[in-house]
Amino acid sequence: MTNIADKEEQHLHRLILFSDAVFAIAITLLAIEVHPPEGWDGEVGSFFHLMAAKLQSYAVSFATIGVLWISHRRTFSRLRRADALLDVLNFLMLGLVALLPLATQLLWGVHTAGPLILYVSLVAVIGLTQGLIWTHAAFIGKLAEPLGLGVRLFILLRVTLLPGLFCGLSFLSLGTHTPWGFLGIGAISLALALIGRRLQPKPAPLPSEA
Amino acid sequence: MTNIADKEEQHLHRLILFSDAVFAIAITLLAIEVHPPEGWDGEVGSFFHLMAAKLQSYAVSFATIGVLWISHRRTFSRLRRADALLDVLNFLMLGLVALLPLATQLLWGVHTAGPLILYVSLVAVIGLTQGLIWTHAAFIGKLAEPLGLGVRLFILLRVTLLPGLFCGLSFLSLGTHTPWGFLGIGAISLALALIGRRLQPKPAPLPSEA
Amino acid sequence: MTNIADKEEQHLHRLILFSDAVFAIAITLLAIEVHPPEGWDGEVGSFFHLMAAKLQSYAVSFATIGVLWISHRRTFSRLRRADALLDVLNFLMLGLVALLPLATQLLWGVHTAGPLILYVSLVAVIGLTQGLIWTHAAFIGKLAEPLGLGVRLFILLRVTLLPGLFCGLSFLSLGTHTPWGFLGIGAISLALALIGRRLQPKPAPLPSEA
Amino acid sequence: MTNIADKEEQHLHRLILFSDAVFAIAITLLAIEVHPPEGWDGEVGSFFHLMAAKLQSYAVSFATIGVLWISHRRTFSRLRRADALLDVLNFLMLGLVALLPLATQLLWGVHTAGPLILYVSLVAVIGLTQGLIWTHAAFIGKLAEPLGLGVRLFILLRVTLLPGLFCGLSFLSLGTHTPWGFLGIGAISLALALIGRRLQPKPAPLPSEA
Repeated sequence: MTNIADKEEQHLHRLILFSDAVFAIAITLLAIEVHPPEGWDGEVGSFFHLMAAKLQSYAVSFATIGVLWISHRRTFSRLRRADALLDVLNFLMLGLVALLPLATQLLWGVHTAGPLILYVSLVAVIGLTQGLIWTHAAFIGKLAEPLGLGVRLFILLRVTLLPGLFCGLSFLSLGTHTPWGFLGIGAISLALALIGRRLQPKPAPLPSEA
Repeated sequence: MTNIADKEEQHLHRLILFSDAVFAIAITLLAIEVHPPEGWDGEVGSFFHLMAAKLQSYAVSFATIGVLWISHRRTFSRLRRADALLDVLNFLMLGLVALLPLATQLLWGVHTAGPLILYVSLVAVIGLTQGLIWTHAAFIGKLAEPLGLGVRLFILLRVTLLPGLFCGLSFLSLGTHTPWGFLGIGAISLALALIGRRLQPKPAPLPSEA
Repeated sequence: MTNIADKEEQHLHRLILFSDAVFAIAITLLAIEVHPPEGWDGEVGSFFHLMAAKLQSYAVSFATIGVLWISHRRTFSRLRRADALLDVLNFLMLGLVALLPLATQLLWGVHTAGPLILYVSLVAVIGLTQGLIWTHAAFIGKLAEPLGLGVRLFILLRVTLLPGLFCGLSFLSLGTHTPWGFLGIGAISLALALIGRRLQPKPAPLPSEA
Repeated sequence: MTNIADKEEQHLHRLILFSDAVFAIAITLLAIEVHPPEGWDGEVGSFFHLMAAKLQSYAVSFATIGVLWISHRRTFSRLRRADALLDVLNFLMLGLVALLPLATQLLWGVHTAGPLILYVSLVAVIGLTQGLIWTHAAFIGKLAEPLGLGVRLFILLRVTLLPGLFCGLSFLSLGTHTPWGFLGIGAISLALALIGRRLQPKPAPLPSEA
């Protein structure tokens, strides 16, 4: 903790820890609102019948927070330091993530398009705030490691658009009982992995660990 | 973990981790009490109408805990070690932070000045305990890195007064539907940033990372 | 954070932190649903009488999450790096762990075999996902430290089967009021410790700490 | 992560992190059950009147978990490695800590001696399990740094007896509206600090930080 560079790494480290805690709490609280079914006769079959909608919403939300966390981890693994604006943008993002358990509860309460629209919009806006974070880190605040413009733009697109897109496609599949949404997610993931590999020169694997 | 200095850094590290966990849980629990609206017809528009007061309280509380966390992070980044009194003072502060979700719930229940007074007072008292922490660390317990008297006094003022002031000004703006409170926050932030820059000799940016 | 090996260790570190947070929240939320008994007369004796079923379920669930956490810790202590598939498999596992508070609540609501079947099945499936994680880490993704085939297979068996087995045997003992289940757990633990010791060449104890 | 000593330090580190998360969640959940007062007229004065019992229980519980955490931190700062039995004993202790929010709720529900007895007993048993942890670490498992027998016995007494004693004395003072309990806590703390100082040869302060 003696010099500036150490302090900025400490800052980044603490910001990541704090974000992880919020993600972890949000993801675990999802399950807390899935209360046991009322009027359950105690049979395993009827349990899944009664709980189908709730467990499905839970699964989608868990996957959504998973995608957001992975996205956050990958973005932040490229940062070298943090600054005050990063704190603020990250808080904005976490404030929206913390609303996901509420949005999940909406899904199983009302059977109109409203809850779905709110849910997918919330996820899309979280994607946008993650895009803002990356924009600040990679283009303005110079918080990221040195990266080519192409890589930085590719990450920006991936971080911003993926969460909302994956979430929307999941609901498309679940709502229409067709596999197209999930197939779309698979195709996009594959394409992004291929593009990502082309953009980033694959390093020679290290012979021994560090 | 072999010598005293290592142990004291470990102590500080564990105290910070613990504080982060409490902040993160408090901030996420804010959202848990924002239950879905009763009697919602499923329309997006009516959702925001029914939830306006709750979402507004949530946003203010989230911002408040954000300010408190950033304040805590900045203060603790200047510490080099911890002692028993720091533990106790920090616990006192966390005990008050953990009450913020309760204070937030008060805001949307009763429509008198009482909840507002309680809320802003709680935030102001948390600011005071953060000021106590800094007073102990920088003036009495010698836990902080070497800093000039001016810088230490400036940090003391900022840490102690800012949370209550920002919180009060936010409610002023929200209550009167005028921008003056938020403009005040902006002006104070700007002024503090300028003073802070003058007090701390800006270090030459390091050519390479540590 | 300058080279690939560092980054992969960072990745692993963050994944472990995140998992710990989810385990810790799940384990603490178990207790939250154990509300005070209704219609309690305030006597200590009647408290334990009214709460017996809940406290017993709580104890079993706490022990179960304990076994899962220790299993996770031991598996991950052998990893050297993380990759994207490990993220996904670990999330799947955590998503099931987060359902344990719900499954625990089922146990004290209905008095048929249904809740027990659901509970033990959930624990067994979590064991399976931990087995999947180890399979990927040790056999496919090459994320683990170098280990003989025997050790890797032994760990796979232990990680996959133990949680469900221990959980089932506990309920056997509790349901029949006999010690056989708990004796079985003791015998299996002893046998595994002995096999484990034979498989792993016991290192000479280090004369000084690192 | 290459050798045994590193791994055991990693193990200890992860155990501490996990414990901190459980402590932090338990302490924050205390506040969650302090719901806003029903039938509140919105006046600040009547708020404290209606909430007096709850806020007082909350304060005592927060202080209790604080004492337990500080006790845990001090004990574990003397450990150099962890083993399987430490995992199990620590889990047992955390399982009891997680019950403290429940025990706190009992305090404000029924006005007999029952809740008080249960609460103080729980805290005393947690003290006992912390004593067990230290006994294993310092006398049997050789997990602690080298310490004289006197110091180890002194720590054992402090860790085992203090939580229950402090908790009981607090309730004595609060129940009888006399200062004797709090004065007792002060006197014991002072005596322990003096004995502790005599037992541990005070190291010369390091001229520079590590």
